[in-house]
Amino acid sequence: MDILTLVGLLAGIVILVLAMLANASLLTFLNLPGLAIVVGGTLAVTLIKFRLATVMSAFRLAMTAAFTDRVARPADLVREVGRLAQVVRKEGILGLENHTTGDPFLRKAINLCVDGHPPELVEEALAQDTQQTQERYEVAERVFRGIGDSAPALGMLGTLVGLVQMLNTLDDPSSIGPAMAVALLTTLYGAFIAQMIALPLADKLQLKAEDEVRNQVLITTSMRNILRGDNPRVMTELLSSFVVPEHRTGLAPEREG
Amino acid sequence: MDILTLVGLLAGIVILVLAMLANASLLTFLNLPGLAIVVGGTLAVTLIKFRLATVMSAFRLAMTAAFTDRVARPADLVREVGRLAQVVRKEGILGLENHTTGDPFLRKAINLCVDGHPPELVEEALAQDTQQTQERYEVAERVFRGIGDSAPALGMLGTLVGLVQMLNTLDDPSSIGPAMAVALLTTLYGAFIAQMIALPLADKLQLKAEDEVRNQVLITTSMRNILRGDNPRVMTELLSSFVVPEHRTGLAPEREG
Amino acid sequence: MDILTLVGLLAGIVILVLAMLANASLLTFLNLPGLAIVVGGTLAVTLIKFRLATVMSAFRLAMTAAFTDRVARPADLVREVGRLAQVVRKEGILGLENHTTGDPFLRKAINLCVDGHPPELVEEALAQDTQQTQERYEVAERVFRGIGDSAPALGMLGTLVGLVQMLNTLDDPSSIGPAMAVALLTTLYGAFIAQMIALPLADKLQLKAEDEVRNQVLITTSMRNILRGDNPRVMTELLSSFVVPEHRTGLAPEREG
Amino acid sequence: MDILTLVGLLAGIVILVLAMLANASLLTFLNLPGLAIVVGGTLAVTLIKFRLATVMSAFRLAMTAAFTDRVARPADLVREVGRLAQVVRKEGILGLENHTTGDPFLRKAINLCVDGHPPELVEEALAQDTQQTQERYEVAERVFRGIGDSAPALGMLGTLVGLVQMLNTLDDPSSIGPAMAVALLTTLYGAFIAQMIALPLADKLQLKAEDEVRNQVLITTSMRNILRGDNPRVMTELLSSFVVPEHRTGLAPEREG
Amino acid sequence: MDILTLVGLLAGIVILVLAMLANASLLTFLNLPGLAIVVGGTLAVTLIKFRLATVMSAFRLAMTAAFTDRVARPADLVREVGRLAQVVRKEGILGLENHTTGDPFLRKAINLCVDGHPPELVEEALAQDTQQTQERYEVAERVFRGIGDSAPALGMLGTLVGLVQMLNTLDDPSSIGPAMAVALLTTLYGAFIAQMIALPLADKLQLKAEDEVRNQVLITTSMRNILRGDNPRVMTELLSSFVVPEHRTGLAPEREG
Repeated sequence: MDILTLVGLLAGIVILVLAMLANASLLTFLNLPGLAIVVGGTLAVTLIKFRLATVMSAFRLAMTAAFTDRVARPADLVREVGRLAQVVRKEGILGLENHTTGDPFLRKAINLCVDGHPPELVEEALAQDTQQTQERYEVAERVFRGIGDSAPALGMLGTLVGLVQMLNTLDDPSSIGPAMAVALLTTLYGAFIAQMIALPLADKLQLKAEDEVRNQVLITTSMRNILRGDNPRVMTELLSSFVVPEHRTGLAPEREG
Repeated sequence: MDILTLVGLLAGIVILVLAMLANASLLTFLNLPGLAIVVGGTLAVTLIKFRLATVMSAFRLAMTAAFTDRVARPADLVREVGRLAQVVRKEGILGLENHTTGDPFLRKAINLCVDGHPPELVEEALAQDTQQTQERYEVAERVFRGIGDSAPALGMLGTLVGLVQMLNTLDDPSSIGPAMAVALLTTLYGAFIAQMIALPLADKLQLKAEDEVRNQVLITTSMRNILRGDNPRVMTELLSSFVVPEHRTGLAPEREG
Repeated sequence: MDILTLVGLLAGIVILVLAMLANASLLTFLNLPGLAIVVGGTLAVTLIKFRLATVMSAFRLAMTAAFTDRVARPADLVREVGRLAQVVRKEGILGLENHTTGDPFLRKAINLCVDGHPPELVEEALAQDTQQTQERYEVAERVFRGIGDSAPALGMLGTLVGLVQMLNTLDDPSSIGPAMAVALLTTLYGAFIAQMIALPLADKLQLKAEDEVRNQVLITTSMRNILRGDNPRVMTELLSSFVVPEHRTGLAPEREG
Repeated sequence: MDILTLVGLLAGIVILVLAMLANASLLTFLNLPGLAIVVGGTLAVTLIKFRLATVMSAFRLAMTAAFTDRVARPADLVREVGRLAQVVRKEGILGLENHTTGDPFLRKAINLCVDGHPPELVEEALAQDTQQTQERYEVAERVFRGIGDSAPALGMLGTLVGLVQMLNTLDDPSSIGPAMAVALLTTLYGAFIAQMIALPLADKLQLKAEDEVRNQVLITTSMRNILRGDNPRVMTELLSSFVVPEHRTGLAPEREG
Repeated sequence: MDILTLVGLLAGIVILVLAMLANASLLTFLNLPGLAIVVGGTLAVTLIKFRLATVMSAFRLAMTAAFTDRVARPADLVREVGRLAQVVRKEGILGLENHTTGDPFLRKAINLCVDGHPPELVEEALAQDTQQTQERYEVAERVFRGIGDSAPALGMLGTLVGLVQMLNTLDDPSSIGPAMAVALLTTLYGAFIAQMIALPLADKLQLKAEDEVRNQVLITTSMRNILRGDNPRVMTELLSSFVVPEHRTGLAPEREG
């Protein structure tokens, strides 16, 4: 559970709502036609730009990537593959068969090794998977950056529509203020969707993509070492560069008695 | 038929029209001189920037790319070339002659093979075709991005012209509002053309270019394998990386009895 | 004569002038001090940014590149070098001496061949020429993009000057409107120069550079083939990738009886 | 102590405060809800974009990088490694053991050499450290550029909220001015945070990263030379390209008597 | 003396001053607190972004690069190194010792040759010098682009401060205009500094860097040829690609009688 995404999102909304309540009722900031222009229009533009399937898989990925924390910490992974290397030294490759792991990429890597495929094929298959992971994240990031571009533009379109309507009915001076307030609301909605939701989620997707790809490269590297029969301690030493310095203590597996 | 482009476009227009009708008649939003400035001016600028032939072929490509769905799904292509590989194994290259396919690039590839050209020449000819496909899409994308740049600029020019006219005739206060509304309309037109039509179409062209190029690379790769006499199942295995994971079941051709 | 550049430019101006005349006299839109700020200021800034010689050669190149159509069509070039290859096959290299061509680059290439220079030197000399062509276009494009950056900035400077002047003389309310109209004119001038002239010309220069460089590469490639003594029909086949598919019929030279 | 960062920051604030005091009390420029929107909102967005640990380590790095001057001058480093090379020539690698240095990277390099690791391993370990230094700076720079993007956006959001509130309460004309002033304050806060703090710090981080990486490359290069047993004077000559010309006198170690 | 930089700068200022004088006294456009915010604030931000030494050397380089014309014309350089090559042919490398040249880089190249260093070392030393020239220009360009970014931002900050002050003192309607005029002045200052001074100087620095680096590459290339003992006429032929076509006549040294 990546609690901070939720905390950030809620904190941003709470701060904004409190500021809105300072001098007016929340209803002042609600305008359904305006919401329809910005949200509906952004959705319409997004459907022109991308495929429906692409948009939906982008939203699914954003949910899991932004709100959960399923990406393992590199230090834990280094320890886990260190234990795997010790198992292989003692029992051979087939000893891996009984290892249970929470990481689906590591599971696939182990399966490929246990199935007896040659090392180059294992490495190529894992590399292809990593590339697809990267592309899936990139497309999702592109969808959210696209929303972050379109929402403020639709907001401006809505404000222009509102201004034109207001300017054509200037007869009643007392209505100018509220009409203009309503016109500005779409700009507010567009800026909010872009700046508080779409663009931060795109940045988070980029960060998570970097993390997940780094973990997959770590696993691929360790599998190469294990299949080559490297010493577990030497392998751990090499993999330590994937771990931030503060977490590097206690990475090495205990010496095989 | 890529129905979503049309749905998105219509949805965007309907939402906007409904918002316009909320407080005013649609006629309020129609200003023919303003439309002439934005549409005519953008067209004029586009003619300076590009050649007439380039602009027209960009529009044609955008129509087919955005509104039709002629790009085959990779999974179908993998199955089709899998069957081709089986045919070649049984009957030799000339067995391909009777194969009918809906994909013009695959048709060309088959013709080149059947004509007995050496493999390197087949591959080079197909690679040249792919490069031209890519360039044709890129030029079309550039045309639409150019329109997406020029339309808002022309809209602003129109608004400036309207503002100057209005400011010179301030005598009648009651006319200020409507005159300013008319001035703002060109900005509205420019933003609409750029944000709802030109830029989303440019993005769609980019997406379709990626799809079509990926398909052509898939076909070129498979032809190389077929001419080399690779095992159909091994080839399918290799090509599966072109297919998203969810569609990978049932790719391999049935085992030759 | 690249008539479309002129048509586009005139059409843009006509549309804008008609829109101006709709509600006011053209004189309303003429403000000499404002023109002096935008045109003079942009020129001044351009002189700081570039050298006088650079600016002048950029303007000369823009004139020939934007308003004339001296770049040959690739299909015509392929036919011409096809004929040259046939001549060389019959009469040897010296047979080229009598060939008259409208393309200065092809002329130079022929001269280099006839002079008996070794093939590598011919190719290197032509490649150097192509690089210089490219650099000359790039500098010219940079000059026009620079004007496209500076003109709107100078326009905004002029509007700020006008606003400050107006705000200091608010005593006479009836003068506010016209004074603000005058202030806005410099923004209008800047946007017009950038969006209708400088930036489209920069784009056209980019397009023409691509065309001219592609032609020169085509000629250099064909000269390599001719000096190597390749079969004219094979050479034409190879060069056909420089030609858009629609124009590829009838490229090959008639078979030598 | 990089005193100039502090001087610049204080000077900027003093100038702005003096300008504020010119015509109004400082209290006019204080609006706590506005501050909450901009500072709180930017923090919330930053927490969505990055991890809490990332943000905190970015702030820590910015403090040390911007306000201290711990990066050694290249000239001093060249002199120090020159002396080390002389020591190694006289006493062998183990002679380095007694050398005390203020630079932690040089300390690590010496330790690796003294521990008797092979030269390639020493170089690879140092190169990995340099890469991590670079990545740590890059992430910190990204955090501050992100703040520089979000703060003005949040400022605009706050101003829109304030404008909508004001426009709904136009009854009392005398309150319009102050209400609008308050609405503008969030834009002011956002621009101040971005332009005077976040973006300059991001630039400074970039500069310091370049300095620190250059020093680490210098040290890695010198260690390679020392382990190869190069002549100290020749090594100094080679390293002099890391030093700006003005500081190059007296780099070479004194000739070993 | 690069007179055009000065002419451009003065012309820009004169045009702007004349426009200011058109409807108001120059004093209207002078606001010392506003100047302090923009100039002082930009300076403060620049000190945070860069080091004091960096900023000062950037200003020094901008002065010499923008206002003097010390970069030699390539045609003159080609003639000079052509004469050097003839000298070396007749008298050997040591014959260069008496050659006096105005170009410091050529002087250094000659000294390196005369000192009897091996050709590779001469070339490497010159290449290092060229890289440092390029880096010095790039840092200076970055400083001026930084100023061009900060000045308008500070101008906007100043205008916001002025607007807030004005909006809080709306009691006296007659003061609104002048107060708003003063507020706009900082935006004017910021735009002027960025658009008329900082950004054009950055562009000029880029241009001069390209010229100087091209000259240094020309000299390095010629030294390689001279040390290899190439024929002076052949060398001149090769170097002619550094010279624009119009200046290529008379490059070759007279034939050694």
